[in-house]
Amino acid sequence: MLNTVEEKAINTIRTLSIDSINRANSGHPGLPMGAAPMAFALWTRHLKHEPDNPNWWDRDRFVLSAGHGSMLLYSLLHLSGYDLSMDELKNFRQWGSKTPGHPEYGHTPGVDATTGPLGQGLAMAVGMAMAESHLSAVYNTSKYELFDHYTYALCGDGDVMEGVASESASLAGHLGLGKLVVLYDSNDISLDGDLNRSFSEDVMARYDAYGWHTILVEDGSDVDAIDRAIADAKADPRPSLIEIKTVIGFGSPNRAGTNEAHGKALGADETVLVKESYKWEHDEFHVPEEVASFFASLKENNKKQFSDWENTLAAYEQDEPKKAEELRGAFAREWFNKEALLDLPAYEVGKDKLATRKASGEMISAISKQTDALFGGSADLASSNNTMMNDHDDFTKENRTGRNVWFGVREFATAAAVNGIALHGGLHPYGATFLVFSDYMRPAIRLSALMNVPSTFVFTHDSVAVGEDGPTHEPVEQTSSLRMIPNLNVLRPADGNETAAAWRIALESKGTPTALVLTRQGLPTLISADDAYEQVKKGAYVLAEADGAVATLLATGSEVSLAMDAQKQLKEQGTHVRVVSMPSQELFEQTDRTYQEGVLPANIPVLSIEAGTTYGWQRYTGRSGANIGIDTFGASAPGDVVMDEYGFNVENVITHVNRLIK
Amino acid sequence: MLNTVEEKAINTIRTLSIDSINRANSGHPGLPMGAAPMAFALWTRHLKHEPDNPNWWDRDRFVLSAGHGSMLLYSLLHLSGYDLSMDELKNFRQWGSKTPGHPEYGHTPGVDATTGPLGQGLAMAVGMAMAESHLSAVYNTSKYELFDHYTYALCGDGDVMEGVASESASLAGHLGLGKLVVLYDSNDISLDGDLNRSFSEDVMARYDAYGWHTILVEDGSDVDAIDRAIADAKADPRPSLIEIKTVIGFGSPNRAGTNEAHGKALGADETVLVKESYKWEHDEFHVPEEVASFFASLKENNKKQFSDWENTLAAYEQDEPKKAEELRGAFAREWFNKEALLDLPAYEVGKDKLATRKASGEMISAISKQTDALFGGSADLASSNNTMMNDHDDFTKENRTGRNVWFGVREFATAAAVNGIALHGGLHPYGATFLVFSDYMRPAIRLSALMNVPSTFVFTHDSVAVGEDGPTHEPVEQTSSLRMIPNLNVLRPADGNETAAAWRIALESKGTPTALVLTRQGLPTLISADDAYEQVKKGAYVLAEADGAVATLLATGSEVSLAMDAQKQLKEQGTHVRVVSMPSQELFEQTDRTYQEGVLPANIPVLSIEAGTTYGWQRYTGRSGANIGIDTFGASAPGDVVMDEYGFNVENVITHVNRLIK
Repeated sequence: MLNTVEEKAINTIRTLSIDSINRANSGHPGLPMGAAPMAFALWTRHLKHEPDNPNWWDRDRFVLSAGHGSMLLYSLLHLSGYDLSMDELKNFRQWGSKTPGHPEYGHTPGVDATTGPLGQGLAMAVGMAMAESHLSAVYNTSKYELFDHYTYALCGDGDVMEGVASESASLAGHLGLGKLVVLYDSNDISLDGDLNRSFSEDVMARYDAYGWHTILVEDGSDVDAIDRAIADAKADPRPSLIEIKTVIGFGSPNRAGTNEAHGKALGADETVLVKESYKWEHDEFHVPEEVASFFASLKENNKKQFSDWENTLAAYEQDEPKKAEELRGAFAREWFNKEALLDLPAYEVGKDKLATRKASGEMISAISKQTDALFGGSADLASSNNTMMNDHDDFTKENRTGRNVWFGVREFATAAAVNGIALHGGLHPYGATFLVFSDYMRPAIRLSALMNVPSTFVFTHDSVAVGEDGPTHEPVEQTSSLRMIPNLNVLRPADGNETAAAWRIALESKGTPTALVLTRQGLPTLISADDAYEQVKKGAYVLAEADGAVATLLATGSEVSLAMDAQKQLKEQGTHVRVVSMPSQELFEQTDRTYQEGVLPANIPVLSIEAGTTYGWQRYTGRSGANIGIDTFGASAPGDVVMDEYGFNVENVITHVNRLIK
Repeated sequence: MLNTVEEKAINTIRTLSIDSINRANSGHPGLPMGAAPMAFALWTRHLKHEPDNPNWWDRDRFVLSAGHGSMLLYSLLHLSGYDLSMDELKNFRQWGSKTPGHPEYGHTPGVDATTGPLGQGLAMAVGMAMAESHLSAVYNTSKYELFDHYTYALCGDGDVMEGVASESASLAGHLGLGKLVVLYDSNDISLDGDLNRSFSEDVMARYDAYGWHTILVEDGSDVDAIDRAIADAKADPRPSLIEIKTVIGFGSPNRAGTNEAHGKALGADETVLVKESYKWEHDEFHVPEEVASFFASLKENNKKQFSDWENTLAAYEQDEPKKAEELRGAFAREWFNKEALLDLPAYEVGKDKLATRKASGEMISAISKQTDALFGGSADLASSNNTMMNDHDDFTKENRTGRNVWFGVREFATAAAVNGIALHGGLHPYGATFLVFSDYMRPAIRLSALMNVPSTFVFTHDSVAVGEDGPTHEPVEQTSSLRMIPNLNVLRPADGNETAAAWRIALESKGTPTALVLTRQGLPTLISADDAYEQVKKGAYVLAEADGAVATLLATGSEVSLAMDAQKQLKEQGTHVRVVSMPSQELFEQTDRTYQEGVLPANIPVLSIEAGTTYGWQRYTGRSGANIGIDTFGASAPGDVVMDEYGFNVENVITHVNRLIK
């Protein structure tokens, strides 16, 4: 049974949410009103956290997958004592506030993930639970439990309908992530009205089929029942789904149980009625003293848990100094000792051809020997994407110390789980698929960029040179469309050494995710291992200068060697052109104007060469330049035939140069 | 029990596949070898089709969702008598052949959908089954059964793992699409090895949870058992999943049952052993005479079914001439009588503001009155996307005549189902979500463009003017990244009349899908209803000319009215600028150079204004121009505040113009 204070606390969560949304005249009151009891049960009876140390490695994670219910989370953060003032609640959804419309990681203390794009919250929670299970297996000892926390997600019906949630629930069941607990706010309403307009499956049976533990709580107001269900969930070795039947907009006489409660402010009149139903006789934005005291009383236990853990860490540092240092580095997103970089793969210019996907694979194995933080795999294309860390085990239900993850044919869940692992901290995760299927991952790639987490995405088979598999498998617009995502570094290296450099840059990035765009086919080595890193870091550089140059060939990836071949042949004809390799437009844009002008002098026309859309290349070629690219879909034939038919041959480059300099 | 001919026929399918893949030295033999018996059972004992009339409206549809098994399909098409010669099989995966690596709709007769990107085949099959159930409800009469066919899909483990397949299976169960039958080639192997590395859920139980009928066939070689299961599936009122246990690479002594059989040619040595195991003593590419006769004998029945149906249609045309004409038009992708266009919504210049999403909603309702072919809805955002056809029913399990579809929170499945409906023919489908979530649909949008089907995608809330919902809900890069997809028309109209024109263009398109990019916020009417269509069709046009113009303001959508305001204020300052509205870059690119030069004269610098990424606009602004856009993520605040903070105000436009003309 709830005592009065607890009931008041729940109604405080509700009314703070209502008031904030009313003031903004924008937001989603329905979820906080209906889900306040479950959130209360979790946050006050289970959640291990310490509001003054929101980045505590071993805190329980909480992901509000139904991100539109942001005021539920903000109310809890405020009441629990996080650095989120009442003024911030009053500024909900206003310019410059810490309380944006949907929770944003890195923006508001205590927010563990940016959510709103449905389904991805649950998928990120799966990644977090993977990270916890791996780190605890690797770093805990018989004496020290550095990692032992749960990951909670609160989902709505919309989350449960999304494919990415299905994929990740299947993965979580397969991996047996027992410390993942999902509270499913099941209110039978979606934005468009009654849920049964579009959704009538048996969710619990579906999760049973995934190998989850499922529990039904019939009354979403029954805090004790929810409490018991959470306790059961924690004890069960499987991931748990607790379906909790709630009433959206609970307490609203005219809107409760309807989609009217979902996405708009209650407004003054209805708020009066709602507060009457809560027996709430206070001004707006009121926190009753006993509620404040109640939350304050929880802090003591929070602090004790945290300081116990700090003591454990201190002792661990004595006993296991190397591991402790590694962990500190990893949580600071410093993955490895820079001296170690000297041992990274290096390739000799002019030697055997090597696909950049293979160079990437060699780099992955090399890095994995130098840091324990590298963790990842492919969406069922490990042997094609070359993503296996040699000499390392698989991460499985039975072996949590393994580092090679088998994500299955679940591209979107792969990328979202990678983000969840990055959010958890302590690991540098990567995920992979064919470049053309980066489209399947795109919403999660965007989210990594928005959250400023350094996820690494490995995309191989990066052009129509894929060949026989045909247009469904041949990327055309993908590389450039990734370049459009703000705060994402896209790197398309030209050879093995540029690839090694690209990986270093990905690992050195602290707040920007990286997309590596790699070939299926072999490429000659063009730049020395000694120079590659410094050059790639600048995004573009002059690979081959030419006196009296009449044009600049600006190429990326596999087309750089084509440009070099064309340069040679043009020279024989008495035409001198420069070759610029541009592995990354984003990095180039960060260099200064003088450097840029040196690489691409305004008075020399530029011909861009990339086996992908020409869209966007005009930024560098202007009106005086030209572009060799592909603005249609690819075709099925051997890769070299396709490349040739699409004009990626020396002859066509020469034709373009001659036309350009006329 | 199989007789000898049937066994030989199955082995013919297998060996044609093996031989074609060997000759190409590229392809996926494992699936055809394992799944040949189920495909044989379906194609020879159930499939209603007529190889000489591959576009027969009432044929059963067959979608090889596991598109990498393309040789299975090509072998069947060849043997069944489709226009696919043995030479085409011999040219598998070669330049210019009709046998590309993955099946391509419109490229090869008898291929009902382009597949390869996993999961989408099943999702398109769901769309096809929706179309059949709607058309049969609307057009069949007590006397005439014009539509009465099944939709079959053949899926592999990879399909079943994909989120889009989960979403669409859930939708199919909800809608009770009883004439959808999925053969699940369950071989416990994926590209990376044993399936249980990444996948261990109970697929049958999951489909039960979706409300499907599930059947297990333990022996994938047992044609009679498969036959019975298909018969059961057809009789059941629910969609059916037949899980058929097979051995990948069946008959290969060294590769059967392993991922080695999946994705590479068997090669000469293994092929000898495989053919021994099949007791196959023939040359390559051999079709035994009795097998050829067997398939020829099926043609008679196929032809009879088709001619019976033709007779039905002829009689129907007598009795129901209006409906019959409508149907012929619809299958020819001619949606409505052009005279009817006169009744479409029109708005008066200078009148009340109207969001383009609202204008789109009015257009949808208006069109729905003039053609029965419009069919669609939203991914749970109908009231925000304004996608409801007024005065029309919902399409539900109980009412198949309804036209408003409730897709649920399943964006990807929505887009893929829309493609399936378009592929089926007879309907012009549309699907909708917020623009930012077009990312969730992107792989299906790409496929619509590749397949040349005129799907229409309605994307509302098209910029940071979304406001309070914040960066997770504010598109920045989406519009331009859609523009990069080959063969997709992206239209971002500036007012109600441009919106009506954009919808007309979408409906008139026969082989190009359309993305409509629409505002949440109200916009003034800028162009007269009489002019809009002709102008929008050209992609860009001069909305407001100016004598002695020193700059062109090139704007789209909601920024066109900003450009108009800036023009006015600049004029007061004595600076004359032109305003060009560019609703569609793709359409503009299709106009001739003279027209383009008239719209954007080379000697007048161009300032592009779009509340989205500047990436790509350099194509029109060159090195002499400038861009107002957004190259970071959005922010949460009231929409007008965000727009203002990001520089979408007259003052900033004036600043840019002044800088530009210096």
